[in-house]
Amino acid sequence: MSTSLALIGVGHIGGSMAAGLRAAGAVHAIHGYDSDSEALEQARSLDLIDAVHPTPEAAAKEVELIVLATPPSAIAEVCRSLEPHIAEHQVVTDVGSIKKPVLQEIEQACGQVPPWFVPGHPISGTEKSGAQHASSGLFRDRRVVLTPVSGTDSGKVDRICWMWEQLGAQVERMDADTHDALFAGISHLPHVLAYALMEVLTDTFPAEELKRYAAGGLLDFTRIASSNPELWLDICQANREHLAPVLEKFQGRIGELIAALHNDQPDVLRGSFTTAKKTRDTLRPDGHE
Amino acid sequence: MSTSLALIGVGHIGGSMAAGLRAAGAVHAIHGYDSDSEALEQARSLDLIDAVHPTPEAAAKEVELIVLATPPSAIAEVCRSLEPHIAEHQVVTDVGSIKKPVLQEIEQACGQVPPWFVPGHPISGTEKSGAQHASSGLFRDRRVVLTPVSGTDSGKVDRICWMWEQLGAQVERMDADTHDALFAGISHLPHVLAYALMEVLTDTFPAEELKRYAAGGLLDFTRIASSNPELWLDICQANREHLAPVLEKFQGRIGELIAALHNDQPDVLRGSFTTAKKTRDTLRPDGHE
Repeated sequence: MSTSLALIGVGHIGGSMAAGLRAAGAVHAIHGYDSDSEALEQARSLDLIDAVHPTPEAAAKEVELIVLATPPSAIAEVCRSLEPHIAEHQVVTDVGSIKKPVLQEIEQACGQVPPWFVPGHPISGTEKSGAQHASSGLFRDRRVVLTPVSGTDSGKVDRICWMWEQLGAQVERMDADTHDALFAGISHLPHVLAYALMEVLTDTFPAEELKRYAAGGLLDFTRIASSNPELWLDICQANREHLAPVLEKFQGRIGELIAALHNDQPDVLRGSFTTAKKTRDTLRPDGHE
Repeated sequence: MSTSLALIGVGHIGGSMAAGLRAAGAVHAIHGYDSDSEALEQARSLDLIDAVHPTPEAAAKEVELIVLATPPSAIAEVCRSLEPHIAEHQVVTDVGSIKKPVLQEIEQACGQVPPWFVPGHPISGTEKSGAQHASSGLFRDRRVVLTPVSGTDSGKVDRICWMWEQLGAQVERMDADTHDALFAGISHLPHVLAYALMEVLTDTFPAEELKRYAAGGLLDFTRIASSNPELWLDICQANREHLAPVLEKFQGRIGELIAALHNDQPDVLRGSFTTAKKTRDTLRPDGHE
């Protein structure tokens, strides 16, 4: 049984959802809106969406599932504009990397978090931007975290679970604040470090030397520094309550390692490196990294 | 025309050189020594070496090329033990990630850097350890940096160039101190950051959460945190003259980003992220990362 979908935001994540849901036979019509009209036209020409619309409300009008695949800072405003038009059978979800600050914005914009809004976050790390990189398999065997609030309609949550399962993802539930604290550490912090490292290297070495000698370690380490800067600025600013403390903790540890280098205390470095390797070795699933 | 090879150290790098040189038909006999007798026996049973020897001198006795594929801290001592036995036709090289401190140790151990020693460093970033992960293609299309000193025999340098070319690598020359400053930034610094991040995450989140939610970005970022801790301790300690300043520069930038988060100065983060992305996008060769 297939349904109809509206994508508000047709970038890499939205485009990949369209491609995957279509490949699974889960949707028969995909309506699209994007504030960037070129991106919208591109998604249409790539056959990721069937129809383009001038507003989120127009795109959402005839469908059951409405996915807000916009940067986090746009979500509350779209919810406000959709609110007067949402019908009984419709459900709205998002794909943002931060949850609690967005829920607070929605609460301010709509008076409450509407029962038809199911907060979601697919854990599908990629540095790519744009519908041209859409991949129908992006969410296969990935986890998706939903962070419903007490007023969220449980039937709507079930529909969003169904949608992600069509994409091959495994759905988990978590409290929004717990989500934001965890992802501040395992996602937002590495992004800031990768950006900062790349910036420091740019400032320290000639561009030609970097291009000539960058090898596997550096390239893997800094892959995420190719991520969309505006999107990550948005995420880091919104999640600063959790990001700043973990960044400070990291900074403190770096200070201890610098002191250990100056004071010839190899055991401090050894302890850090050994603990890290032990954990890292548990993370790598057999057969792929 | 093939030659004979002695490997002093039969881990991942040494084993991969053996496999690659044999595959290229460049060597007809490979003699091996390792301070770890189990590793030595393993390399023999994997057919990476033809004969095992009880000392570096014994392994080196009958060969033309002698490769010191040991951790950097062992190189000077092996040079000292080989020195009385090196014949006119023999050449010795190493594969260490740091050059100048090792050359200084060799100078202390041997009175000078011997003309038969050609300092080398293959840029073949991998987090793997042990001969069981040896790969004959590890050096294909990679760069190798040689840092000969004024007294190094140029004919010996040519032989080491020949050896690396057999492995498909591209050889470059650089001053030892320039090498150490560059790799402090593009290799040693990312290793310290990956280890430190993994340690901080270990200390902050339950192991189960890390395993469950670690996705592509974190896994790539921390791949090098699976590297051998003792080897990297060795490298970081030896290169601390260059590593400490670049680590301090990085720490300073992190401090500025933390302040920008606290003071709501998005332009500071935007500047950092944008500069970083611009450089990173130039590093990724088309078609692979």
